[in-house]
Amino acid sequence: MLSKQQLIEYSEEARKNYVNHISIDCVVFGFHEGQMKVLLLKTNDEEKWYLPGGFVLNEEPIDTAADRILKERTGLDKIFLQQFRVFGDPDRSKVHNDMYAGMLPKEENWFSGRFISIGYYALVDFFGVIPHPDQFSELCAWRDLDDMPEMQLDHENIYKSALDALRLQLNYQPIGYNLMPREFTMPELQKLYETILDKKLDRRNFQRRVLGFGILNRSEEPRKGGAHKAPYLYSFDMENYQNALTEGFKGGW
Amino acid sequence: MLSKQQLIEYSEEARKNYVNHISIDCVVFGFHEGQMKVLLLKTNDEEKWYLPGGFVLNEEPIDTAADRILKERTGLDKIFLQQFRVFGDPDRSKVHNDMYAGMLPKEENWFSGRFISIGYYALVDFFGVIPHPDQFSELCAWRDLDDMPEMQLDHENIYKSALDALRLQLNYQPIGYNLMPREFTMPELQKLYETILDKKLDRRNFQRRVLGFGILNRSEEPRKGGAHKAPYLYSFDMENYQNALTEGFKGGW
Repeated sequence: MLSKQQLIEYSEEARKNYVNHISIDCVVFGFHEGQMKVLLLKTNDEEKWYLPGGFVLNEEPIDTAADRILKERTGLDKIFLQQFRVFGDPDRSKVHNDMYAGMLPKEENWFSGRFISIGYYALVDFFGVIPHPDQFSELCAWRDLDDMPEMQLDHENIYKSALDALRLQLNYQPIGYNLMPREFTMPELQKLYETILDKKLDRRNFQRRVLGFGILNRSEEPRKGGAHKAPYLYSFDMENYQNALTEGFKGGW
Repeated sequence: MLSKQQLIEYSEEARKNYVNHISIDCVVFGFHEGQMKVLLLKTNDEEKWYLPGGFVLNEEPIDTAADRILKERTGLDKIFLQQFRVFGDPDRSKVHNDMYAGMLPKEENWFSGRFISIGYYALVDFFGVIPHPDQFSELCAWRDLDDMPEMQLDHENIYKSALDALRLQLNYQPIGYNLMPREFTMPELQKLYETILDKKLDRRNFQRRVLGFGILNRSEEPRKGGAHKAPYLYSFDMENYQNALTEGFKGGW
């Protein structure tokens, strides 16, 4: 929470530089070897946690704003961020309205009004991220998806919606670039899907379906070494992968 | 275009009642027996056309705002509207900024600033709709998707993005309720998909995939009459249909 003096300074800057009534909230899912985490922030005087978020500069495209916010929190450039939904309940800003009510006249108080928030999600390898707290927070940290803390505002709803969107995305867009090594086996890719969906998948159905997407190249030589039958190695066909990111797996029809 | 007096009155009302910097644009696709249309508006003094749109009341959830705007334009209640993307380019409001620049001091002029627009789309039977122009327009009309007029602002981009989103949706969510009669044949349903995708589909692949979604009930008796082999009749299983609308065809994995 901001002190009165901080609120005065922040409000003045914000009212000058940002588009009022719009915010951005980012759900960054981190994956590494079968584990899924979410990047969260905690302020020093509140018990609950926040998703990383921020505002849109007056002359800034919204996707650029999301990139900027994420870069500040993660150090990562060019994360593939997807808009997934807008959160526009009139009461969603009430906690902040109340928290700062009376500290400043309403028309000068950045947190006196309603904020409609654009939700973005991303999926990254959490080993590559160095979390940075923002000016309001003492902590920026990965939390396990199956052991999430209590969330402030409507942020529980936002990360759950993002997870639904990510799971839906498995049906119509490719996933896994930046999470897999350059070459990987079919069981390694299946593990990623199983972790996101939080369930076991049938090996043969998975292989048939993923190959049907047309985004994988199979190496001619199976992986060497090991006592068992050597598995084939796959890599992403980046041209088809990029096309499917923009257009989806339309080939299905 | 508003006259100066109209702009003064509109701006005063809008600044009092609506959330600034946020707008809603709706892409209403109309389907009927193999034809696809889009609902558009035209003002009396501009050559280009608009998508139906509007603003969000101070205390109104955004989805309710979209419903209200659509009801005013179509007379239809409870259209299934889907948020599909936010349009947040800083220059997208420039045409309106310029059109009304100088008519009113900037801080009083509703159209002096930037609007970030939430895009919604819907798919309806165009035979059930009576289009109503809004206060800015002389015309509200269905236009053929393959013969669209020049569009104002970024509205061409918005309806094309909506079409992409609708086509993607065919991969992960059901479609067709309210467009099909209560009972329909497989070729009738296939025609809907072919019209949206603007391409011919293979009959057997279509049938296998659609049945795999688990949203259809087949009647025990084939349709009677006709010289040819009587086709089976299908209807939507509304419980599975509703589940798949919220959760997607997750069963795929």
